[in-house]
Amino acid sequence: MLENISSVKVSGGWHKQYTHSAVSTHCTMRFAVFLPPGASESNKVPVLYWLSGLTCTDENFMQKAGAFKKAAELGIAIVAPDTSPRGDNVPNEDSYDFAQGAGFYVNATQAPYNTHFNMYDYVVNELPALIEQHFPVTSTKAISGHSMGGHGALMIALKNPQDYVSASAFSPIVNPINCPWGVKAFTGYLGADKTTWAQYDSCKLMAKAEQSNYLPMLVSQGDADNFLDEQLKPQNLVAVAKQKDYPLTLEMQTGYDHSYFFISSFIDQHLVFHHQYLSA
Amino acid sequence: MLENISSVKVSGGWHKQYTHSAVSTHCTMRFAVFLPPGASESNKVPVLYWLSGLTCTDENFMQKAGAFKKAAELGIAIVAPDTSPRGDNVPNEDSYDFAQGAGFYVNATQAPYNTHFNMYDYVVNELPALIEQHFPVTSTKAISGHSMGGHGALMIALKNPQDYVSASAFSPIVNPINCPWGVKAFTGYLGADKTTWAQYDSCKLMAKAEQSNYLPMLVSQGDADNFLDEQLKPQNLVAVAKQKDYPLTLEMQTGYDHSYFFISSFIDQHLVFHHQYLSA
Repeated sequence: MLENISSVKVSGGWHKQYTHSAVSTHCTMRFAVFLPPGASESNKVPVLYWLSGLTCTDENFMQKAGAFKKAAELGIAIVAPDTSPRGDNVPNEDSYDFAQGAGFYVNATQAPYNTHFNMYDYVVNELPALIEQHFPVTSTKAISGHSMGGHGALMIALKNPQDYVSASAFSPIVNPINCPWGVKAFTGYLGADKTTWAQYDSCKLMAKAEQSNYLPMLVSQGDADNFLDEQLKPQNLVAVAKQKDYPLTLEMQTGYDHSYFFISSFIDQHLVFHHQYLSA
Repeated sequence: MLENISSVKVSGGWHKQYTHSAVSTHCTMRFAVFLPPGASESNKVPVLYWLSGLTCTDENFMQKAGAFKKAAELGIAIVAPDTSPRGDNVPNEDSYDFAQGAGFYVNATQAPYNTHFNMYDYVVNELPALIEQHFPVTSTKAISGHSMGGHGALMIALKNPQDYVSASAFSPIVNPINCPWGVKAFTGYLGADKTTWAQYDSCKLMAKAEQSNYLPMLVSQGDADNFLDEQLKPQNLVAVAKQKDYPLTLEMQTGYDHSYFFISSFIDQHLVFHHQYLSA
């Protein structure tokens, strides 16, 4: 059962938040949806899924990205899940980059995380099914995200190219098996055996992608981002894309950092990018 | 001395926060400024002052209004002060609508508030002088705000029509002497003698405005705003404007509430409105 917990008009459409009891994560999950003006059962619209970064909830993008004006104009719904399971029964740590607020969009195999931390299943399967059942949307989907959520968006698109028409990311962690944030999260959720990690690493996934499954992919990265060299490493994905002739565009943006001010500066461009494919 | 505490590129321009020791309020004040691309000593730009509402700081508008893309395009700087003095030495109450976070843009006359709560002087005199000294801006100013800050913007423009080219507000408190928020604040800051209140009431000020000092004024109000009937009462200002033939446009927007989602939906329209006069 979906419980509607807020409903606010914005840019001619509606921003709404819901909670529901999730099967994948065995807890109550919250998500937010933006419905553009005119979306109805007789006028269903495609969906852009947005995955947020470390410490975020469903609210950061919806409040700070400034995406609604362009999404309303283009007729795109936006769905933003939370970044992890939450609640008193969900394991947590006093850490911004692990456990609650940092689900990393994987299915955990290690206790005590494996009961709840199944954000991969939640985002790939459970949430879209729920959205398509309860909202005036088509099954045409694109996916985007920021930082940890950029990792989630690219990784999920590369693993499920049949489910999405396009993928993009802001400041994504493209090679989690080779950066401190990813190594910490994957060790905790997947265990010390690194052979289990590659299935969630965008560089590894792109390296074995088949050309018939290629998706248009756009990455925006600020060159004043404090996390660029140690955590994000977009050049690692660009190297794979070159080798594979994968249709990845990386746009380095001079002077921008890792914040939502960067996202708000280029979100319209990402929406227009996805709209080409969502409306095709 | 201005201390720069953040500097982030956004929409081709810059968002910067500063602190300084303020004379008006006898405490350290924080403010934020957006500088559009190309603003420089040889290309000075006009300024829109933005006054926020109850509980807000300099950050709410800057993070949630989605104003920068249009402000960059139009070449307008935006300055957002905090909504009150703050600090351990500043009197406070366990209340969202009085004392810290709720300065109401007046000069307090009542102890213990009269030392610090001089937001009127700060916004009208001290802050613009500082801005014009330290940033690449002209002295051409417009003013806008939300809720308590909408009261501040309209009231300050009506009291100082020579200082601003235009005024606007979202969901403003237009008649504070006749609503619970205003009565509580004015009693606390100005005392029980209501004859001292009219100088800060937009309806009273407009009623005695001289035609040669009229300013173009735009008010946007959502009709699903929970505070509309008890606190905001825009019809009271419209009645005065009609009597006085004052150039006030009130736009009632169907279905919108009191939140920043409303502001983000119409901020571009307000920026275009001010730009007509700022660039004249």
